[in-house]
Amino acid sequence: MALIVQKYGGTSVGNPERIKNVAQRVAKFKMLGHQVVVVLSAMSGETNRLIALAKEVQPNPDLREMDVLVSTGEQVTIALLSMALMELGLKARSYTGSQVKILTDSAHSKARILDIEEHNMRADLDAGYVVVVAGFQGVDEKGNITTLGRGGSDTTGVALAAALKADECQIYTDVDGVYTTDPRLVPEARRLKTITFEEMLEMASLGSKVLQIRAVEFAGKYKVKLRVLSSFDDEGEGTLITFEENDKMEQAIISGIAFNRDEAKITVLGVPDRPGIAYQILGPVGEANIDVDMIIQNVGADGSTDFTFTVHRNEYTKALAVLKGVQSHIGAREVSGDDRIAKVSVIGVGMRSHAGIASNMFRTLAEEGINIQMISTSEIKISVVIDEKYMELAVRVLHKAFGLEQGA
Amino acid sequence: MALIVQKYGGTSVGNPERIKNVAQRVAKFKMLGHQVVVVLSAMSGETNRLIALAKEVQPNPDLREMDVLVSTGEQVTIALLSMALMELGLKARSYTGSQVKILTDSAHSKARILDIEEHNMRADLDAGYVVVVAGFQGVDEKGNITTLGRGGSDTTGVALAAALKADECQIYTDVDGVYTTDPRLVPEARRLKTITFEEMLEMASLGSKVLQIRAVEFAGKYKVKLRVLSSFDDEGEGTLITFEENDKMEQAIISGIAFNRDEAKITVLGVPDRPGIAYQILGPVGEANIDVDMIIQNVGADGSTDFTFTVHRNEYTKALAVLKGVQSHIGAREVSGDDRIAKVSVIGVGMRSHAGIASNMFRTLAEEGINIQMISTSEIKISVVIDEKYMELAVRVLHKAFGLEQGA
Repeated sequence: MALIVQKYGGTSVGNPERIKNVAQRVAKFKMLGHQVVVVLSAMSGETNRLIALAKEVQPNPDLREMDVLVSTGEQVTIALLSMALMELGLKARSYTGSQVKILTDSAHSKARILDIEEHNMRADLDAGYVVVVAGFQGVDEKGNITTLGRGGSDTTGVALAAALKADECQIYTDVDGVYTTDPRLVPEARRLKTITFEEMLEMASLGSKVLQIRAVEFAGKYKVKLRVLSSFDDEGEGTLITFEENDKMEQAIISGIAFNRDEAKITVLGVPDRPGIAYQILGPVGEANIDVDMIIQNVGADGSTDFTFTVHRNEYTKALAVLKGVQSHIGAREVSGDDRIAKVSVIGVGMRSHAGIASNMFRTLAEEGINIQMISTSEIKISVVIDEKYMELAVRVLHKAFGLEQGA
Repeated sequence: MALIVQKYGGTSVGNPERIKNVAQRVAKFKMLGHQVVVVLSAMSGETNRLIALAKEVQPNPDLREMDVLVSTGEQVTIALLSMALMELGLKARSYTGSQVKILTDSAHSKARILDIEEHNMRADLDAGYVVVVAGFQGVDEKGNITTLGRGGSDTTGVALAAALKADECQIYTDVDGVYTTDPRLVPEARRLKTITFEEMLEMASLGSKVLQIRAVEFAGKYKVKLRVLSSFDDEGEGTLITFEENDKMEQAIISGIAFNRDEAKITVLGVPDRPGIAYQILGPVGEANIDVDMIIQNVGADGSTDFTFTVHRNEYTKALAVLKGVQSHIGAREVSGDDRIAKVSVIGVGMRSHAGIASNMFRTLAEEGINIQMISTSEIKISVVIDEKYMELAVRVLHKAFGLEQGA
């Protein structure tokens, strides 16, 4: 008998028929003798519907009230799934984030989980109940409803699995696992049976939307065994996110190609090359609440340096304005930018022990005439920024160059 | 400076535009220096939408989960109104029933309020906040979400007014007050400036759907000053429900004509006239959870008696089956029924001190050839059961016979 946490996303519970399907799947695991905790998102479209309502009455909605509003979405699905489970003859009980309780800080709309009270859930599980928990939401110490931000239901699933020391946390989604790259771009893309936690982290942060990055971080921190599965495919085994690299390294050097066209780059040219200059440039950006991704600084020969960084494309205009504002103060010759860029990355724990990955990547791109604008590397990934229009081509040729279509 | 509790029903908050109108009205009271607590229902149609969803997954939905589900309706409106108030520059904070907390028993779908914690609301009011509370819902001592049953938002409003010792509880609805009878039936029907608590209780229980009877009972018990107003009319003073009869009695003997066609009658003929027979008949009905309204027993001459009672029309078939089942046991000659009846009542505290009300009523009906099937009286009301098809006629002629169109 195992304890399994299953998380189902919005499309998996998008209407009563699909909710009944989820109940069937839960029942299957229950019949095998497992204890099951289910974490649910709101019905697909519901959160957006509620946000639109809010904006009709307050164009820039208050965050505390927004959390009160949108948290109703999951409250609806947990009640409906509990009913569907009872209709199948199972015992089931729903819990809102507040009822669990999932204690968070008070940062409305992007709260962080501080603690999870597991006593009541444990008692229900031991009494044979399926425990159905609202994802995405929690409660602060004053009793205010909070939400974890978009995609936070994954985080709830992993956090519950960690708190309950579950044997596995299964994330059901509308894809059947993690692929070597997006199959819509590269038909030869192949589902990975396993991927390491670190690789998954890089894949998630680079725009593979299968799992929320916070959920992956959480899983890594608490060593939660995570599996990504399709809720529309009864047979698939999905992709298991592992913590062991050993088997992996013998099979493949590169696990996948990630890409992201949500970024824009800003370049500050001709900055005096002196200590503290990076802070003088990025300080104002941070104060404007703009997240920075890649940062590159080249040391120039004439005592000045060029500084480039990337931000989310939505914040490009704002970031550019901030930099123009401080340009004279930092003594920069020019501030320019480009919001038509894409980031493409090859990811794999295997590259730690294999030379030549970078040169293979750069040669492949060069052969296609794709100019590399920025390069950034970590132990298990190499990212390049290129002109947006070459993104699909770059992903396809890299997928082939690293033999990803051949399978493990 | 007064403390006012305002309750708005589903049509008053049916869309963002109407929610903004409610915010304007609340702001008006706030600007006059009053402290305001607002109690809201779900958007009109929302509760039914959620119930329909539930029935798709569980035809006979679990009551605990149903409460989790439908309580989201008010959670949406309290968040939206709080946002609308902030948009007008006011401070506002929403509270779910659980957050208040409104402690109830655990009778899901028809819970009773046991206690209301007023501390947080009071602190918010003193700090200048408009407090926006979800009606209809509460929480039991184990933290389960409960609901007070349909129309329970009125009860929440009155209960909060009692707990906070509010100066007035204003119930905003889609009619502009309590009328002498339904204006759709009798165009001459007139809005009452005041009505006594006892009259209101009779009017509510007899199908004048302006206020929930439980809310009126609550108001009477805690001497809450209650006013019914239209949320679509900025000028009207509505109808004040008073506890003093003195002024009233000088003005009018009869306050209104109520009617109800939701009932059915069941007659048990030829029952042995012995002690305990009423219990033998009504005991099984009560055990089947069927509420009985009017009960009439005539003593016969031959040692047997006839026994008639009314139940809600929805439970007619069930009640009839129960009685058929015990017919031989109680030694009744016949069990019969009729679900095409209507109850019409004249109501007024003035009838306590005025003779001739009953004879005026019976004569008026006789003149129209309307046969009276049952009669039941209380200190301030006389009810008759007649054939359903004469209901509108009876209401019209009685309204005229008691001079109700002439005003006070």
